[in-house]
Amino acid sequence: MTSKLILLRHGESEWNSKNLFTGWVDVDLNEKGVGEAKNAAALLKSEDLLPTVLHTSLLRRAIHTAYLALDGCDRHWIPVRRSWRLNERHYGSLQGLNKAEIREKYGETQFMAWRRSYDVPPPEIEKDGEFSQYNDPRYADIPAEERPLHECLKDVVARMLPYWESDIVPDLKDGHTVLVAAHGNSLRALVKHLDGISDDDIAGLNIPTGIPLYYELDETLKPVVRGGRYLDPEAAEAGQKAVANQGKK
Amino acid sequence: MTSKLILLRHGESEWNSKNLFTGWVDVDLNEKGVGEAKNAAALLKSEDLLPTVLHTSLLRRAIHTAYLALDGCDRHWIPVRRSWRLNERHYGSLQGLNKAEIREKYGETQFMAWRRSYDVPPPEIEKDGEFSQYNDPRYADIPAEERPLHECLKDVVARMLPYWESDIVPDLKDGHTVLVAAHGNSLRALVKHLDGISDDDIAGLNIPTGIPLYYELDETLKPVVRGGRYLDPEAAEAGQKAVANQGKK
Repeated sequence: MTSKLILLRHGESEWNSKNLFTGWVDVDLNEKGVGEAKNAAALLKSEDLLPTVLHTSLLRRAIHTAYLALDGCDRHWIPVRRSWRLNERHYGSLQGLNKAEIREKYGETQFMAWRRSYDVPPPEIEKDGEFSQYNDPRYADIPAEERPLHECLKDVVARMLPYWESDIVPDLKDGHTVLVAAHGNSLRALVKHLDGISDDDIAGLNIPTGIPLYYELDETLKPVVRGGRYLDPEAAEAGQKAVANQGKK
Repeated sequence: MTSKLILLRHGESEWNSKNLFTGWVDVDLNEKGVGEAKNAAALLKSEDLLPTVLHTSLLRRAIHTAYLALDGCDRHWIPVRRSWRLNERHYGSLQGLNKAEIREKYGETQFMAWRRSYDVPPPEIEKDGEFSQYNDPRYADIPAEERPLHECLKDVVARMLPYWESDIVPDLKDGHTVLVAAHGNSLRALVKHLDGISDDDIAGLNIPTGIPLYYELDETLKPVVRGGRYLDPEAAEAGQKAVANQGKK
């Protein structure tokens, strides 16, 4: 018996298109993102790959994407589980700032370290800053000392994996077709774990928006095919290049 | 300590406006219904009555209403629980038929008995009929012999109350502000229970679409004010009259 896991990065958001660091700032999809989410629905439907349970982050762009993707393949009624542990990486004090401006100000090396190094977090955000979520009621259940003020990918792996083990794995073992609607970095963290990607190599992995990535997992929850399969491989390739080029003017 | 319960009947659906018996047929909101759901969000926000957990039926019009109502008051991220036990009454073989035509064909007495009597169900639907949901995967967990083919309001009370006790009451006792996004008849069943309305008197109770009905409940979960309070009482009164007049040409 194999298990079915579908990863879906939210469609383009209002801030993706403005080239701003978003992180935990709760922006919605833009028009293109809405179209991507609906297209994801069509892909799931055409492959008859219909989720039976949904896991999302607590962020609107993932929740909206999941709503549209499930509504369009007639799976709006499935059980939903949410966790901050699936949230995008917290971008610290970079949240709300323009990627190209940060690149220019701090230089390519520092910029790429913040964006793609495994263990260099951006500077901490001020707790009461304009783009801080420190006092947002949705995170009230996270003990104050564990509530992130910035994160590197290593931090995301550390807070995402406990949820994978405690909540997603049991659904897979119950025979569910699991949809995880989340973010570039929380999904990179998960793919790193699934495919056994090294701390160095994960820098080169980009996940495009709005294209379902399907993993068939064996009984030990190892991918039957390493890297899984994008339901639209051509669009995925173009999308990956676009992600890799972010921050270039 | 009192508990906070908000009942929300979905906004107008594609079939409400066509005057068709809908029941378990999974139609979406129409444009007016989308506006009603967004207006519900504004009412919740303006009263600072912000849900912390959502319960919905398995039907798109309730799920869509909840999505818009929560998104608009920044509560899209709260936990979601769903159950077929919150579904609209199953209208049996009347599903998909025009209310005015049924009224004309069978006469006022039979029509009102099917619509508003407590214990007269409409005829059973054919299991494989065009508007039957008997084989819909979302109801696969209901044992075949319990899967409704028609329901009177008494049947709705009987299948809704166990969910109230097992799932909604515990959330209220945990201090949650509970939003129940559901349907005319599943909410009538719940209001009947909350307000202790008799089998005869429930016929006269109509619930308008899209207007949050707020109940403050005491420690025994009895309403502090019988009948609760609509967040927009004027619109609610107009809406109740409109529901009462359905089926008239």
